[in-house]
Amino acid sequence: MIGAGNLAVHLSKAFQDAGFNITQVYSRSETSAKALAGILQTQFTTSIDALRTDALLYVLSVSDDVIACLVGQLPLTDQLVIHTAGSVPMDTLSGKLQNYGVLYPLQTFSKSRPIDFTGIPVFLEANTSENLQKITEIAKNISEKVYQATTEQRLYLHLSAVFGCNFVNYLYGISSQILQQAGFDFDVLSPLIIETAAKAIASGNPRQVQTGPAIRNDRKVMQKHLDILADHPDWQNIYAQLSEYIGKNNIGEHGCL
Amino acid sequence: MIGAGNLAVHLSKAFQDAGFNITQVYSRSETSAKALAGILQTQFTTSIDALRTDALLYVLSVSDDVIACLVGQLPLTDQLVIHTAGSVPMDTLSGKLQNYGVLYPLQTFSKSRPIDFTGIPVFLEANTSENLQKITEIAKNISEKVYQATTEQRLYLHLSAVFGCNFVNYLYGISSQILQQAGFDFDVLSPLIIETAAKAIASGNPRQVQTGPAIRNDRKVMQKHLDILADHPDWQNIYAQLSEYIGKNNIGEHGCL
Repeated sequence: MIGAGNLAVHLSKAFQDAGFNITQVYSRSETSAKALAGILQTQFTTSIDALRTDALLYVLSVSDDVIACLVGQLPLTDQLVIHTAGSVPMDTLSGKLQNYGVLYPLQTFSKSRPIDFTGIPVFLEANTSENLQKITEIAKNISEKVYQATTEQRLYLHLSAVFGCNFVNYLYGISSQILQQAGFDFDVLSPLIIETAAKAIASGNPRQVQTGPAIRNDRKVMQKHLDILADHPDWQNIYAQLSEYIGKNNIGEHGCL
Repeated sequence: MIGAGNLAVHLSKAFQDAGFNITQVYSRSETSAKALAGILQTQFTTSIDALRTDALLYVLSVSDDVIACLVGQLPLTDQLVIHTAGSVPMDTLSGKLQNYGVLYPLQTFSKSRPIDFTGIPVFLEANTSENLQKITEIAKNISEKVYQATTEQRLYLHLSAVFGCNFVNYLYGISSQILQQAGFDFDVLSPLIIETAAKAIASGNPRQVQTGPAIRNDRKVMQKHLDILADHPDWQNIYAQLSEYIGKNNIGEHGCL
């Protein structure tokens, strides 16, 4: 396991739970390497030259920017190496490596939250069909949802996740701060948040279940909301912009909130 | 029950399940009135003058714009009347009515999705403490989460729901369309969507669990994403704007997606 960040930790545990032996952890940071090796009860190194050369698979789970640089330093040639990034082309691993690919798990990972890896969709790519088969066999041990995706498809998958996860979470943050102003905890919004997600998933097409003032073109309510956002120009901009776009794409059922 | 839309249907069922008898349904639309009365096995009318005057409670569950107009036509004086709208002041019911209030359920309702009302937070307001007590007693039969909220607090609650539900669903819609472009169903995003919601709720403060390229200030990835959004200027605007705001409010853990 090359890397010891959030994803490296969760992925290592998933591999270990599936019966694989993580023989070595590498990280530039001794603290991180030691911590993950401790969890896995295995060896660690902070020297790239000390990497074992006999592993079944090398998992590069490091920052996007570091991948290209690190590949050049790997003391590997024909070993199978994969990265785990959504928006990094597979060919970043080409050059001196002969066998390489990608395993991209579509999920958000935080250190403190345990997660069941078997339900996470993973998207695979490899430089040969043999390598794809090898990675697929390994991946099926840690996830029940194994797909193939090209570098371009993976970029779109990552982009869809930015909208459906990162941006959604930012909106949750705004909700939470507005609730605070009204004297309520974020907790009171949880049934609505869960139902919104569940309904969108059940629909298969979120646009068909759009509700709220913007899809109803309820200008009176929208104006009231914009007025009380006067002290938060960023939120006011988001409100105005998203409401305008929702109004333009008016295919919802005009349900009420 | 005055009104027969999405909320009126769900609320009527909740009252009935709790043992209340909906004695009459009113709607301007005969089709809607008949449909809801059929579900409840009760009477209906499309004539406001034919309203019974002996009910324990009158629930106005109609479009925001209709409330003020309808109140003037009600053949009621000292009966207890409530509306169910987030962004309509309680005092819209004042004038000839002597006993009135609000019961606002913080949830999104669609006709085709059954929902367990007992878990939905409801926010109450009334014009006297006696009426508040009456409405509270009734509300506790249909929900385990009964709160008080003033007209102003309710407006903020509704606004937080627009961000946390309506706008979130719009982002789900964009995600879904981007996935389609990559040849995948919205389904592959469901573990991420559910985890994002669950993590935000568990954190109590969504800003602390923000992940993604924007909070990491990963300009390379953001530029790739903006580039492939070239054919969708609306989505590109949203991407640029939300990324900028997320970058400004950088308090996240810099987790990876």
